[in-house]
Amino acid sequence: MLFNGNEKKIYSTDNPDEVLLHFTDVMTCYHNVKRAKLVNKGKLTSQISALLLKYLSDAGINTHFIAQVGERDQLCRRVTNLPIVFVARNRVAGDMERRFRWEGGERLPITVIDMYLNDGKLGDPLVNDYHIMALGIMTQEELNEVHAIILKANDLISGLCSDAGLELVDLQLEFGRTADGTIIISDEISPDTCRFWDKDTGTRLDKDRFRHDMSDVIASYAKVLECLSKSGTGMSN
Amino acid sequence: MLFNGNEKKIYSTDNPDEVLLHFTDVMTCYHNVKRAKLVNKGKLTSQISALLLKYLSDAGINTHFIAQVGERDQLCRRVTNLPIVFVARNRVAGDMERRFRWEGGERLPITVIDMYLNDGKLGDPLVNDYHIMALGIMTQEELNEVHAIILKANDLISGLCSDAGLELVDLQLEFGRTADGTIIISDEISPDTCRFWDKDTGTRLDKDRFRHDMSDVIASYAKVLECLSKSGTGMSN
Repeated sequence: MLFNGNEKKIYSTDNPDEVLLHFTDVMTCYHNVKRAKLVNKGKLTSQISALLLKYLSDAGINTHFIAQVGERDQLCRRVTNLPIVFVARNRVAGDMERRFRWEGGERLPITVIDMYLNDGKLGDPLVNDYHIMALGIMTQEELNEVHAIILKANDLISGLCSDAGLELVDLQLEFGRTADGTIIISDEISPDTCRFWDKDTGTRLDKDRFRHDMSDVIASYAKVLECLSKSGTGMSN
Repeated sequence: MLFNGNEKKIYSTDNPDEVLLHFTDVMTCYHNVKRAKLVNKGKLTSQISALLLKYLSDAGINTHFIAQVGERDQLCRRVTNLPIVFVARNRVAGDMERRFRWEGGERLPITVIDMYLNDGKLGDPLVNDYHIMALGIMTQEELNEVHAIILKANDLISGLCSDAGLELVDLQLEFGRTADGTIIISDEISPDTCRFWDKDTGTRLDKDRFRHDMSDVIASYAKVLECLSKSGTGMSN
């Protein structure tokens, strides 16, 4: 085992360039203050993430995803994760809502990218390009490339969601470096990390249901998978 | 009177394109929790700011400064201030020190620009280019231009300080729009808004002395003015 997280575990494989990602049924929020085990959660997030990473990959965006190898396991390229969490926001929610004391849910006139240093002890502080460069994490050229990838991925997944009757409210992405230094999308893309709404009713279909003690968390995740699979571009092909 | 601040008052003049800035002796910090009246403070900050704004202007950077018209009054171009405070940081101090829990004083490998939304009710939150664009404050082209101006101004004033036996630790800049929409440097550049250290001893010569209950605040401001004036580029010419 290379990494033993609440929601994900990472194992080495016989191939030094590949790892196995295992998605658990554990759900946590508020920096681990609230946690629960929800049956089937790991299967759903693993399969949604596989579908979306494959969709990006088919559109020419490099990701760590290689293949789904079980209901909740996927083979991925081995990377060194960059300690930055990127969030592309199409509507105001979560941390941005609190920071500007907005009501939440407002559609943004442009896609906003927030960047957080992945450091729980510091409270995952908001950072900008200069901080990331000063910390030696990425160069300006790499940051420009990553910003362009995030905006392209956000456009692609927003379009896919729209075709599937969903709306992508925000998209969280993490990146890692392969052995040769290439920066590719890593981690997962699922309702555990991003916000998905029903396009027509605005019903939340993501982890906000868990955060705010709403019912039907798993049914909502299952609906996201069902909609995306049916949209003609997903795993149903 | 157009603006009645603690540290500065702004008056209209007979010319609708010009205003009079009056620098008071009031000093405040910690969001106005700590305040005092320090005799001669306004004269010193006004004259230091005039010297530095004129220095930038001579180097081709547009500022609002027109002329010093009294010991603590200056004629400036009338602008609509943009609600963003920019800080170019050469060493870690203040808010950046707290945010990353660094010791403070570390020299940064690159100049870091922090941007804060000037909104006391929100606690002046840190913002990035995307937020500023989403709030409709500036376009990407304007932001690129402003970032370039800040880095150039930081280089220029850092060089001037070095020649004067000082070190510019950080440089706070604000910008405003003239009637024709041009974005120029506004507000002030002084030890009230920026950090100046003695280049050899590292002695603080700025508002940090007031924040941290150190002696000789006014003597330190006077030393900054004296050093800059003597450096061959200032008002002594």
